[in-house]
Amino acid sequence: MSLNIPEYMQQVGKKAKDAAGLLSAAESAQKNLALISIAELLIEKAEWLEAENEKDLVAGKANGLDDAMLDRLRLNNKVILGMAEGLRQIAALPDPVGEISDMTYRPSGIQVGHMRVPLGVIGIIYESRPNVTADAAGLCLKSGNATILRGGSEAIYSNQAIAQCIQEGLQTAGLPAECIQVIETTDRSAVGELLRLKDYVDVIIPRGGKGLIERVSAESLVPVIKHLDGICHVFIDDDADLDKAVEISLNSKTHRYGVCNAMETLLVADSVAAKILPTLAALFAEKEVELRGCSRTQVILPDCNKANDDDWTAEYLAPILSIRIVDSLDDAIDHINQYGSHHTDTIVTENITSSRYFLRRVDSSSVMVNASTRFADGFEYGLGAEIGISTDKLHVRGPVGLEGLTTKKFIVLGDGHIRQ
Amino acid sequence: MSLNIPEYMQQVGKKAKDAAGLLSAAESAQKNLALISIAELLIEKAEWLEAENEKDLVAGKANGLDDAMLDRLRLNNKVILGMAEGLRQIAALPDPVGEISDMTYRPSGIQVGHMRVPLGVIGIIYESRPNVTADAAGLCLKSGNATILRGGSEAIYSNQAIAQCIQEGLQTAGLPAECIQVIETTDRSAVGELLRLKDYVDVIIPRGGKGLIERVSAESLVPVIKHLDGICHVFIDDDADLDKAVEISLNSKTHRYGVCNAMETLLVADSVAAKILPTLAALFAEKEVELRGCSRTQVILPDCNKANDDDWTAEYLAPILSIRIVDSLDDAIDHINQYGSHHTDTIVTENITSSRYFLRRVDSSSVMVNASTRFADGFEYGLGAEIGISTDKLHVRGPVGLEGLTTKKFIVLGDGHIRQ
Repeated sequence: MSLNIPEYMQQVGKKAKDAAGLLSAAESAQKNLALISIAELLIEKAEWLEAENEKDLVAGKANGLDDAMLDRLRLNNKVILGMAEGLRQIAALPDPVGEISDMTYRPSGIQVGHMRVPLGVIGIIYESRPNVTADAAGLCLKSGNATILRGGSEAIYSNQAIAQCIQEGLQTAGLPAECIQVIETTDRSAVGELLRLKDYVDVIIPRGGKGLIERVSAESLVPVIKHLDGICHVFIDDDADLDKAVEISLNSKTHRYGVCNAMETLLVADSVAAKILPTLAALFAEKEVELRGCSRTQVILPDCNKANDDDWTAEYLAPILSIRIVDSLDDAIDHINQYGSHHTDTIVTENITSSRYFLRRVDSSSVMVNASTRFADGFEYGLGAEIGISTDKLHVRGPVGLEGLTTKKFIVLGDGHIRQ
Repeated sequence: MSLNIPEYMQQVGKKAKDAAGLLSAAESAQKNLALISIAELLIEKAEWLEAENEKDLVAGKANGLDDAMLDRLRLNNKVILGMAEGLRQIAALPDPVGEISDMTYRPSGIQVGHMRVPLGVIGIIYESRPNVTADAAGLCLKSGNATILRGGSEAIYSNQAIAQCIQEGLQTAGLPAECIQVIETTDRSAVGELLRLKDYVDVIIPRGGKGLIERVSAESLVPVIKHLDGICHVFIDDDADLDKAVEISLNSKTHRYGVCNAMETLLVADSVAAKILPTLAALFAEKEVELRGCSRTQVILPDCNKANDDDWTAEYLAPILSIRIVDSLDDAIDHINQYGSHHTDTIVTENITSSRYFLRRVDSSSVMVNASTRFADGFEYGLGAEIGISTDKLHVRGPVGLEGLTTKKFIVLGDGHIRQ
């Protein structure tokens, strides 16, 4: 008998909403017990998890997945220990739910402030990596949200196995299993249904490739917290310390290539270009980074390829770097705001006026002075963990940790106060 | 020659986005000068504004608008002085833009914190009351956002006249006129186009009747900050001080009827119902408030009409009150979370445990103890002014002031720091 997908998803949504009511008031100790229990179960059942994962790997090979995809799909002992450790770290973080702030007395005599509360029900749509199941579930649970997880069909056995550990862990802590539901069908229409569950789901977080995120954004009737491109810039200002500029440029580009906070375009002030570009070009050559420069860059670096307009909006995620020489701080900022993706951009300068100007005017989720773009990360920022990096503006920008999965309501205390 | 609406709206969007870049970095003094200049111009041109408004009133009468609608449409001297005073108050508020908070040093040595920044471009879609043009424009300007205002066609002459004052005021302060654009056409398709301008507009705020808000929510590709119903509750707990309960119930219901923060349903604990309901019924009778009770209420108040299921979800905005007797605090909370609109709900109790429980578990934008629901208001909360009350969860809940029109980006300061 085939599953009626719309009906099934309605049921999933309804159960999640009911569970969210309970979970929003759950005590921290209970949520932490669930997180630690899930971590223990993952380790206890590691062999079985690997066996279930093997089914996905075999099917993936048969379906022609490439090595990189199979690699992301693989649940080996290291990945399983990583999931467990991640859950333990989340358990150790302070509970954001219920935090009361800004309580002040008003002239009327009432006392007004905020209480931090969960968003409610969060839908996570993700691809390939089955460890997202545990990571995302952990963050949502700790922040008091019920979660609906929809992983890729290629990881269905792995995700279901992790789901079973999650269900048992919730049970151990006395929390309803519906706090974290993993969609049981690989039917693609389930995603479409999830995106229409606006009576039950408060926010959708897509995690995966650009295709997935664009589809989710275009179709969703539920608000989406999303991260599209990471086209990050380093700008070497007239007043840059050139040693710092070299270090930061190299680190931003070459520390890791396939990450959203890697530099994709280097902007260099005209006054320092002739001095710093040859040094940088030699170092990038050692790392086998392909350089693509504007015409002025090519005058200084004759061997450099020509950058065309598409290069300014390219997220290479590869050992390729575009370089542009600019005439002024304003030109650098204009370039970043026009071509960038509002992710992370850094200025290298010793000048406080230039740095203040850059910090204020660059419209990105992370704006930096004299630091590598690679620092744009939930752990580096002290959020403890992150569920993603938002390049949107509403609700949350930049790395999204536990606070980003909550909201604030007003609370008012009186003593029989009425409005005059 | 007729206007090409899609092309016109694209132009409006593009101009707004360009202006937003400038406005986000404008100094407070410049924004305040614009606000005060607009206020002065409104007063200077009061006679002309009233004459332009008269054209709308004449057309409105001819088109059969009822007296209440004509009343909302009217720009008399009092309304004009109110607009000017509102703008001066906004000028006097602290500027939220650029505020830096939470700067801390991380183990890596970088310093991480937040900077408050404007959302960018805000689209306001509103009905009838032309004074919204000035109020909304003022709040958006102060918070550094470019604004696109689309008022009702019945107020087109009034809105255009106010727009002219706004344009002149911006000019006086040296700000581009495109910071605040008022849509010049009454063509209804302009609204649809505005809702699709997701490349240019960051958020849409609809202000008006339920029909407008539902249309905007259903159609918009741009995120919406909205306020739907205000179905507010007062719960009189077992441990209520009955004098306070009477005062708060009366004030919440009868202080004003047509407002979203008026009580629509009174919940009463069984143990105190027989004692308090007759007193309340007599006072409500004096105010000619119609009571509609559950069957248990009817036992105590035999003259009370029967409430049916629709009454629990009705926003009367009128001298009508539904009453339900509940067996427990949990039953009251379940009723509020199920039937309410997540707007404002209050408990009357002397019991600290019950009040803490209520504050945590009621899922509303304002949750109160021993205070009238009528306090749910931007001015009463000390926000200085409000552009609306959000019953959504994402980004902002409850009264939306200047902060609600901003967001935070991360800022990172280093000294040549790179990631290890």
